[in-house]
Amino acid sequence: MNITNLTYKVKSVVDSESLSMTQDFSWLHRGTVEIFPQSNDAESESLEKRLVTTNRPLRVKLGIDPTGADIHLGHSIPVRKLRAFQDAGHTAVLIIGDFTARIGDPTGKSEVRRQLSEADVKHNAQTYLDQVRPILDFDTPGRLEVRYNSEWLSQLNLGKVLELLSTMTVGQMLAKEGFAERYKKENPIFIHEFLYPLMQGYDSVAVEADVELGGTDQKFNIAVGRDLQRHFGQKPQFGLLLPILIGTDGVQKMSKSLGNYVGLSEHPAQKYQKLQGVPDNLLSQYFELLTNLPLEKLPENPRDRQMLLAWEVVKQYNGETAANEAKEAAKSGGKEGAVPEFSLAGGTQFPAKLAYLLNVSGLCKSTGEGKRKIQEGGVRLDGDRITDVDTIFEQPSELHGRVLQVGKNKFVRLVN
Amino acid sequence: MNITNLTYKVKSVVDSESLSMTQDFSWLHRGTVEIFPQSNDAESESLEKRLVTTNRPLRVKLGIDPTGADIHLGHSIPVRKLRAFQDAGHTAVLIIGDFTARIGDPTGKSEVRRQLSEADVKHNAQTYLDQVRPILDFDTPGRLEVRYNSEWLSQLNLGKVLELLSTMTVGQMLAKEGFAERYKKENPIFIHEFLYPLMQGYDSVAVEADVELGGTDQKFNIAVGRDLQRHFGQKPQFGLLLPILIGTDGVQKMSKSLGNYVGLSEHPAQKYQKLQGVPDNLLSQYFELLTNLPLEKLPENPRDRQMLLAWEVVKQYNGETAANEAKEAAKSGGKEGAVPEFSLAGGTQFPAKLAYLLNVSGLCKSTGEGKRKIQEGGVRLDGDRITDVDTIFEQPSELHGRVLQVGKNKFVRLVN
Repeated sequence: MNITNLTYKVKSVVDSESLSMTQDFSWLHRGTVEIFPQSNDAESESLEKRLVTTNRPLRVKLGIDPTGADIHLGHSIPVRKLRAFQDAGHTAVLIIGDFTARIGDPTGKSEVRRQLSEADVKHNAQTYLDQVRPILDFDTPGRLEVRYNSEWLSQLNLGKVLELLSTMTVGQMLAKEGFAERYKKENPIFIHEFLYPLMQGYDSVAVEADVELGGTDQKFNIAVGRDLQRHFGQKPQFGLLLPILIGTDGVQKMSKSLGNYVGLSEHPAQKYQKLQGVPDNLLSQYFELLTNLPLEKLPENPRDRQMLLAWEVVKQYNGETAANEAKEAAKSGGKEGAVPEFSLAGGTQFPAKLAYLLNVSGLCKSTGEGKRKIQEGGVRLDGDRITDVDTIFEQPSELHGRVLQVGKNKFVRLVN
Repeated sequence: MNITNLTYKVKSVVDSESLSMTQDFSWLHRGTVEIFPQSNDAESESLEKRLVTTNRPLRVKLGIDPTGADIHLGHSIPVRKLRAFQDAGHTAVLIIGDFTARIGDPTGKSEVRRQLSEADVKHNAQTYLDQVRPILDFDTPGRLEVRYNSEWLSQLNLGKVLELLSTMTVGQMLAKEGFAERYKKENPIFIHEFLYPLMQGYDSVAVEADVELGGTDQKFNIAVGRDLQRHFGQKPQFGLLLPILIGTDGVQKMSKSLGNYVGLSEHPAQKYQKLQGVPDNLLSQYFELLTNLPLEKLPENPRDRQMLLAWEVVKQYNGETAANEAKEAAKSGGKEGAVPEFSLAGGTQFPAKLAYLLNVSGLCKSTGEGKRKIQEGGVRLDGDRITDVDTIFEQPSELHGRVLQVGKNKFVRLVN
């Protein structure tokens, strides 16, 4: 960011005049729920002020959980904000939380924190990066830093852990959303759970973050990062909170398990199909969070708005040509028209191994190639990755209507 | 312990017959408040049973806090029990808690956990060992193991710490005496405080303890050790709890700060003097805990009992001759008669440096030797070690009646 052209007056803390800035910060505030601390805090510096007065790119942190490989539009929101920071000249610091994923939950009770192998973690992280490649600027030098937090967390000894734990009281930790209810209900909280917010906070210390992005559910953890940075003599980061996206059902938060999601690696026609059905009351939030289109210039007709949203999002991830094709397919009435169909009734033998299906459907040139693709993690069924080469289907009915996919661009819909 | 001569029948869990043993376990139970678990616990093994059925010496743990150097008769109680285990053929494992002492309290708020240098810790540990030398068997091979817990605690990484913390819930930890009241009163409990019981417990894992000794206030921590040993696949230790000794005032627990203590390194005459004044209602507990005398054969006359106690304890720490001398001195009416006196009125210059006083009083041959003795930690005033060579006294009145001491055997009482 070139700050030499700005007319910006530094104001004193007691000065009640508003900041005089010609800089446009609409990119910062678009879709943002909260930035904390605000300028009226004791530290008397706003994020806007730090943005224009810091004589280097700011370091903007986003933590990534590598336990799941596939991400959807809900996950894309902080990543899109990260891109906005990149475009303003700052450094995106993506932190892959491989340390905790490698350990898993020591009690073995948490499904969310199941233990992953090093290979799983690397693979999930790579898949994540592949999926956010259309969003982030991977190319401009100095704009992206990808870090694995095992780099510093695996180095922490007991003395340092004691120091981290000593920065907070039990009462403060139990005030955290989630803990408070469980403690009240006398549901067990294992003590190691107190360490996770502190580890996330220590990530901010390790990368010397100026800003941390997250969903509104991350406020506590980001605040812990601020406290730890202060403890270790750093200037505390700002927190920038973004909404949790409502799913395409218009009711619950977007989630794979609820089926109300749009996956970043879904077929363009599937994405288009799902997005052109987004309820009218969600449209303005979707435009605000998922596109850069000016909100005051959207079409008046609700149907036109839906189609514009669908086209725009598909364009972001799959390019303009794919967006046009998806639009045409949807228009022509064939709801999933852009996905070629393969009839299982034309001689496919059951029980059918997945690798065999990849061959007979034409997605792979041989069963052997099919096996390789499965092992490489390149095969999905309805967007879900399948990595077990021995996957077998007993009946055609298990597959009817489902989309089989190899890599990014090869799809067939399996029909009767 | 030679177990081949024992007539001991192993009984089954469901068998309700009492154990048939000819073995005398009075040494185990003398003064003991509680041994847990008892034989009727789910594990169905009593400590007595483990003592006779284990085909090797048991490992009996006692943890030592190296933050203070001087110890008194209250501290001696678990050490004496440890000796009883040694005499029965078992291994005393003394654990010097140097790890936490080296770190101190990260918040800096705890006076108890002030940070000590490596030299301080080593020095305090050595002083401790010097003082318990008359109690423990240091000589028989295999009977004593002295370990510093930094050996294993400094090796713990964050993954292992997570595992330790995951073995307990916040609710379980808050049930611990001390935490419960503070939490109720909303006094801050810092999260790292939860780690101390787990570290003490992990010591039991590291040394593979069969028994841990402690005061009755240690029940929670010893139980944590049991849980951790079970977690790490070991047979859990037994806890053996001993009373907290009441001080010579007969009211409060023995404590240096309350002045109701008898220090192990005090002059024999001082020890004798203090012990012959122990109130009658305490005498039987003192005999039980501080001597091996048969309790049914004590003198009937209370005064004789007091004198026997005093003589017996002095004999343990300073030998029979010193005990006789102390007894004679006390009898001859000179209450502190066994300590030579030095008159400060005979030309001593004030303000007076400590090293100068050591010289003029005849305890050291020169002021230079006095300084060396101070630096080596060999100088005490009324039993309190003084290590600051610049210690200075402005007025003779600051010293009147106090006992200055170099090493174990050189004392003078400073008088007017």
